[in-house]
Amino acid sequence: MRRLRLNFCFASSLASAGTVLLVVAAAIAQQPIGVPVPPLANGPFLFDTAEQHKIRVSVVAKGLEHPWSLAFLPDGSMLVAERPGRLRLVRDATGDAKLDPGPIAGVPTVRLIGNSGLMDVALHPRFAENKLVYLTYNKPGPNKQIATALARGRLENGALTDVKDIFVADWLPEDANGYNSRIAFGRDGMIYVSNGASNSDSAQDPKTHRGKIMRLRDDGTVPPDNPFVGHPGYRPEIYSLGHRNTLGLIVHPVTGALWNNENGPNGGDEINVILPGRNYGWPVASYGRKYEGPRVSEVPWREGIEQPIVFWVPSIAVAGMAVYTGDRFPAWKNNVFVGSMRTGEIPGTGHLERIVFNDKTEELRRETMLTELHQRIREVRQGPDGLLYLLTDEDAGALLRIEPAP
Amino acid sequence: MRRLRLNFCFASSLASAGTVLLVVAAAIAQQPIGVPVPPLANGPFLFDTAEQHKIRVSVVAKGLEHPWSLAFLPDGSMLVAERPGRLRLVRDATGDAKLDPGPIAGVPTVRLIGNSGLMDVALHPRFAENKLVYLTYNKPGPNKQIATALARGRLENGALTDVKDIFVADWLPEDANGYNSRIAFGRDGMIYVSNGASNSDSAQDPKTHRGKIMRLRDDGTVPPDNPFVGHPGYRPEIYSLGHRNTLGLIVHPVTGALWNNENGPNGGDEINVILPGRNYGWPVASYGRKYEGPRVSEVPWREGIEQPIVFWVPSIAVAGMAVYTGDRFPAWKNNVFVGSMRTGEIPGTGHLERIVFNDKTEELRRETMLTELHQRIREVRQGPDGLLYLLTDEDAGALLRIEPAP
Repeated sequence: MRRLRLNFCFASSLASAGTVLLVVAAAIAQQPIGVPVPPLANGPFLFDTAEQHKIRVSVVAKGLEHPWSLAFLPDGSMLVAERPGRLRLVRDATGDAKLDPGPIAGVPTVRLIGNSGLMDVALHPRFAENKLVYLTYNKPGPNKQIATALARGRLENGALTDVKDIFVADWLPEDANGYNSRIAFGRDGMIYVSNGASNSDSAQDPKTHRGKIMRLRDDGTVPPDNPFVGHPGYRPEIYSLGHRNTLGLIVHPVTGALWNNENGPNGGDEINVILPGRNYGWPVASYGRKYEGPRVSEVPWREGIEQPIVFWVPSIAVAGMAVYTGDRFPAWKNNVFVGSMRTGEIPGTGHLERIVFNDKTEELRRETMLTELHQRIREVRQGPDGLLYLLTDEDAGALLRIEPAP
Repeated sequence: MRRLRLNFCFASSLASAGTVLLVVAAAIAQQPIGVPVPPLANGPFLFDTAEQHKIRVSVVAKGLEHPWSLAFLPDGSMLVAERPGRLRLVRDATGDAKLDPGPIAGVPTVRLIGNSGLMDVALHPRFAENKLVYLTYNKPGPNKQIATALARGRLENGALTDVKDIFVADWLPEDANGYNSRIAFGRDGMIYVSNGASNSDSAQDPKTHRGKIMRLRDDGTVPPDNPFVGHPGYRPEIYSLGHRNTLGLIVHPVTGALWNNENGPNGGDEINVILPGRNYGWPVASYGRKYEGPRVSEVPWREGIEQPIVFWVPSIAVAGMAVYTGDRFPAWKNNVFVGSMRTGEIPGTGHLERIVFNDKTEELRRETMLTELHQRIREVRQGPDGLLYLLTDEDAGALLRIEPAP
């Protein structure tokens, strides 16, 4: 019996030959949480939205395995980093979009653990001249240790050459958690690199890179004007501290400010404006609860901790972020888009979320979209064509394109 | 052209002859927020849910105008209060369910304003003996003033007789807001009555009934053991203070504790355990923002304020509450259900929400359901048949029944 999600269908055809699932009666206590989600159909999918109204979501490329991040190249093609350690090329990403079957050579060996492996990919601001591509990844070390590493190489003739680690964070035991890292180039020419902390207290510890956002020169060295340079007991790379798991890190295209988003555990996802030397509170001040139930902190705020500009309770497992500045979606101008991988700790509840701010960057409303696709959305970017591009964090992952529909 | 919400359909037939909407191209700036939601179809609707799996939602009665609350009678029929001021009878509500065309006589004249008019309906715990039914409503007064009133009468031979106001709160000008009131009988035999405050500061003012939960004897007089009896400057009816708009008020069927839920403005909906004499913070400590953007309070907590056990950011416009104690949905035992009328300030986003707690009443996860119906859900109750009954707060409102499906 084909087990469909019975309560919706799409304007276009349903999933092509799906898996035949045998529905076995199981004791209620043994039934898993979450609705078995059928594989993403071929699309395209038409949605009606609150202010921009009709949009079309197309599956631009399939067969990506837990794609983590994307970066557009000047010629309109796109790099996609796959968690297992492959860098892929989508040719003509804003047009016919063809995924090259073979990965781009030169990516370092990654260590897969939890939700990470190969993570972010970003181009140097002057890529057109220097061909530099930056990657973050879990670097395997001796005794099964792992470190977050920032590497860069030159993308030439379809391969990465001269690849070097320019920064390697602390080595950690393999059962440490919170391996995640995103990067963003600031208008100051520096590269900002996040490093996760998950449920450890290390985000408050100035002697470790865990749970921090770091600021480096584009060669990985420490800029002398970093906020803690010369402070005893502080790693000089640290720019801000008290972060849990940052899965979105961008420079706001209008203001130039550095924004992150980070996941709380059970509640407490945040968007923050990142300022030098500030403490963002994890885990001493959080809006969330531990997975087992107790509040992370007795109260959600304390003196000296920066408040988020947006937070979520329950969590949406926020990941990816883009500020829409294009002209293809007039009703979305300057709105912020984030991905959601899972809402309220219930599987199958990923979606795209849109946040509207007033001109003081105070939020007015939030719109949840694409829930019917049930995909974990990990990445959101605006393309050079002024459309939105998303990645789904699934075994059978996909690149999605959103465009307005008449 | 029939403007359907294109991205879903239901296992049963779609909406019967829907309204034909002419799609007129309008300047983007003039397009309203929210997706035009087609009228609720006839159903039934099949949904797959995270832990209880297949459920069927039936439209048990239609043609209710902004139904606000419901109460089951011992014979299995049901009283439904309609906002415009009518009390209705649904015969055999757990079976064939027929809505009596004529309202029940005897309801006082109500003043319609904002989202309220006739509000809550509840039976005296010993209704079987005394036939007493309690109502809250907006009482019209001289000079267009309005007061929240608690009335009771005897339900005999299909009519309310001997109807008297047993408690009338402060008279307010008609442009005051926050007219809402729910009632619950406690295990101590007292009646708990909430009174809204919306965006005024009066919830902190002990000299007014606004923004309070009050505790009265079943004849409306003040119990001598109320927490502020004898405190100068305090209205003696007050049980707890600092509430914004309480749209859910129940006695927890397992613990006997009094629980409320209340709406924040733009974020900050809460569930609270109500204890005597305590301050729940509105508007000096809130998780929400004002509709225009600024935070309601600089920080969301302060000393002396009770923390909610559950809160929502963004808001879901929470209303109605039931703790499931039946046996028809084994996976939902002791879960809390609340209605949502609107999420993130976007119209058309009402739903049913289920909250799972551990045995310390710490929340573990939250499941959003019935989003595809796009109905404002204002009331949730468990029926004597162990099923769930909901009311939709719509011009064309309905009574919904949820049952497990094979």
